[in-house]
Amino acid sequence: MRLRKVKNALEKLQANENYFIKNPMEQKGKWTQYFGNSNPIHIEIGCGKGQFISRLAELNPQINYLAIEKYDSVLLRCLEKVETLTLPNLKLVLMDASHLLDYFSPAEVDLIYINFSDPWPKNAHAKRRLTSPAFLSSYATILKKDGVVMQKTDNRHFFEYSIESFNENGWLLSHISLDLHQDKDIDNITTEFEDKWSLVGPIYRLEARKRNYE
Amino acid sequence: MRLRKVKNALEKLQANENYFIKNPMEQKGKWTQYFGNSNPIHIEIGCGKGQFISRLAELNPQINYLAIEKYDSVLLRCLEKVETLTLPNLKLVLMDASHLLDYFSPAEVDLIYINFSDPWPKNAHAKRRLTSPAFLSSYATILKKDGVVMQKTDNRHFFEYSIESFNENGWLLSHISLDLHQDKDIDNITTEFEDKWSLVGPIYRLEARKRNYE
Repeated sequence: MRLRKVKNALEKLQANENYFIKNPMEQKGKWTQYFGNSNPIHIEIGCGKGQFISRLAELNPQINYLAIEKYDSVLLRCLEKVETLTLPNLKLVLMDASHLLDYFSPAEVDLIYINFSDPWPKNAHAKRRLTSPAFLSSYATILKKDGVVMQKTDNRHFFEYSIESFNENGWLLSHISLDLHQDKDIDNITTEFEDKWSLVGPIYRLEARKRNYE
Repeated sequence: MRLRKVKNALEKLQANENYFIKNPMEQKGKWTQYFGNSNPIHIEIGCGKGQFISRLAELNPQINYLAIEKYDSVLLRCLEKVETLTLPNLKLVLMDASHLLDYFSPAEVDLIYINFSDPWPKNAHAKRRLTSPAFLSSYATILKKDGVVMQKTDNRHFFEYSIESFNENGWLLSHISLDLHQDKDIDNITTEFEDKWSLVGPIYRLEARKRNYE
């Protein structure tokens, strides 16, 4: 998600004491100590304005959440949403997902959410998709055994690509939905984007467990 | 596909000399000799009225096709379609797909088509779906190395199940389309059913290559 550039966004983020993590790379291998408890750690790569992960953090106080976002102007919008709430189990991280391995040690993370990430439709940009082989490999590294990636997207070709990529790279697929909002029996917490685009076409969803990686 | 029972359908099939194979089980392990050439063998499980496989047989004289159908009344409709044509590379087989291993030796088949097979929507009937693990195992046996299953369906939940089943059982997925008739760049030969139902909703498609089976 890109938003109009907000002036001094980084400074505004850094001024926050409760949510924004100033030196997240220093927590690599020490996230459990950082949170001060041994609860599971769930991360959202590309948290956007934060509706999804802040609702999860409210619902699940026994889970630690990291809202990861690449653009400071976007993360600032997320911060503005959560700073009116008291969510000690949620922290915000400004990070490019291609550097995940600089921020997490092997097996530090229990679950990764990827919601409506950029589909990068051109084949020449396939490597930038968050489900391309290099990203999956980094997820496999930072996830615990039986760790899970949960993906949602409205982009058909990106989802077709993602299924094939997870499959080819040895992940176990489950809970596939090709029209999530028709599956009324599934608990689904929506993103801001999803609230808009689910009216236009199907939302796709999958879960993938690391399997063949050792 | 079920049709109204046709009287004496089996007798009518057996009266045909050109297309109907009377004792297909006797060809097990000898299909190449049966066709009298070493061309690849492609089979369609559940050929219905035969539009799909007869068009393929016309287009590809260098491939041997077996149109497999469980119901004699349905296979008779297929026969009525093809007997006006001259297709030496197409033969019709009355067979229940759960007995595939009685009709084919290991690695006799190059490609298996599964088009719009019964989705068996109840979980209690999942074993009857043509992409359930036992069926996939029999496909893996009769297919050559790098043999392919190509599936089309209009049934969303059946397709979700099929992706998960192929993935879990070690097949390599490719050429997934979640709305085949929107993908204008793909050559697609339709079935009678598909001509009707593609107007109503998306047609799903995948290819799966045997991988982890030995």
